[in-house]
Amino acid sequence: MAERVAALVPAAGQGTRLGLGPKAFVPLAGRPLLVWAVRALAPWVDEVVVAVPEAALGEAAALLAGAAGTTPVRCVAGGATRQETVERLALATEAEIVLVHDAARPFLDAAIVRAATAAARKHGACSVAVAVTDTLVRASDGGAVDRSALLAVQTPQGFRRELLLRAHAHARAAGTSATDDAGLVRALGAEVAWVPGSAQLFKVTGPDDLALAEAWAGTLAAADGRG
Amino acid sequence: MAERVAALVPAAGQGTRLGLGPKAFVPLAGRPLLVWAVRALAPWVDEVVVAVPEAALGEAAALLAGAAGTTPVRCVAGGATRQETVERLALATEAEIVLVHDAARPFLDAAIVRAATAAARKHGACSVAVAVTDTLVRASDGGAVDRSALLAVQTPQGFRRELLLRAHAHARAAGTSATDDAGLVRALGAEVAWVPGSAQLFKVTGPDDLALAEAWAGTLAAADGRG
Repeated sequence: MAERVAALVPAAGQGTRLGLGPKAFVPLAGRPLLVWAVRALAPWVDEVVVAVPEAALGEAAALLAGAAGTTPVRCVAGGATRQETVERLALATEAEIVLVHDAARPFLDAAIVRAATAAARKHGACSVAVAVTDTLVRASDGGAVDRSALLAVQTPQGFRRELLLRAHAHARAAGTSATDDAGLVRALGAEVAWVPGSAQLFKVTGPDDLALAEAWAGTLAAADGRG
Repeated sequence: MAERVAALVPAAGQGTRLGLGPKAFVPLAGRPLLVWAVRALAPWVDEVVVAVPEAALGEAAALLAGAAGTTPVRCVAGGATRQETVERLALATEAEIVLVHDAARPFLDAAIVRAATAAARKHGACSVAVAVTDTLVRASDGGAVDRSALLAVQTPQGFRRELLLRAHAHARAAGTSATDDAGLVRALGAEVAWVPGSAQLFKVTGPDDLALAEAWAGTLAAADGRG
């Protein structure tokens, strides 16, 4: 029997530079960011599990009804931190392969979802990433940083679920944290494969990212209209 | 008498991931990237000086005729490296204040041009920059890098021209280089002020950046139509 794949979407963050309420509920072209992410993932996975603030569980369920087509979607309450939320999500599914994806990255291409799934199956862990194209400097003194030695991490990050759970248990016991789940897996000594991302997969963080996202949503809608 | 301001646009790079020919000549919404940059700068400066490959001088002059309104525009041949090209540009004007701007950043807001000009006057040197929002890791081993300590450098970078020339002469004599001009000024021990950039000011490097740029150009055109 084929291994099952679950998409895990942590969307429990409260803080937002985009206005009141959780960022994942901010509308983009009339549809919450969270719904964009779920629609992009659902066709390629066996189920979607979303974590939202406990108070938003009802609203999220209503928003997501119908967003995933025939793919089952469930909502769970998030934890106190992103890390805790992802661990809860990984415990809420029985799928062998999980894809953890930021709700704030609405433009997720099918090819990237499939490449991340394949890489997680083959290597146990993978992260989508892109080269850094801007010059980077230290904020303190303006000193140069060699950007060619760095990658900018996007999502999804894909894992064998047992490996992700082991990494989270290890981090919890050690009291360590990482800004991404692949970092926790690496702390176990496991390898993480790279999957090429895209400029469109940018994270919507502030109002100017949201404006750019509205523009790209318009392009996608026009392309759909032609299709 | 008020200090004069020149915009310097190095566009002599030959290599491109966007197809044949210099990147600055790649069309965006029917208009070369270089023309976008010059149109954004021209209303706020006393002259614009552009550096292109020697073989493209005629073509560039034709493209830029009329692009800058009543602001004078001149084209000069670029050097063998970006650094050499910027030094040539700084020698090709007599303006006291210069703004060095990448031709590959088409969406330059008037407020940012004016802020960079004011900061260059006041502090002698400035660079537009934004916070890093993606998690950064080392490509070699996936190790975490503290993004909160870093800034992503955009352009324009603004300078008192004599300071920029001194920095370039110093770098040339020492055989050093930097990926941005502010880095050369810092190597003299001079301070560089920060001016907040924007997500729209992204650099068009590959085909997916260009697609995003086409979308944003469409949004700007629609906003103009409403105006």
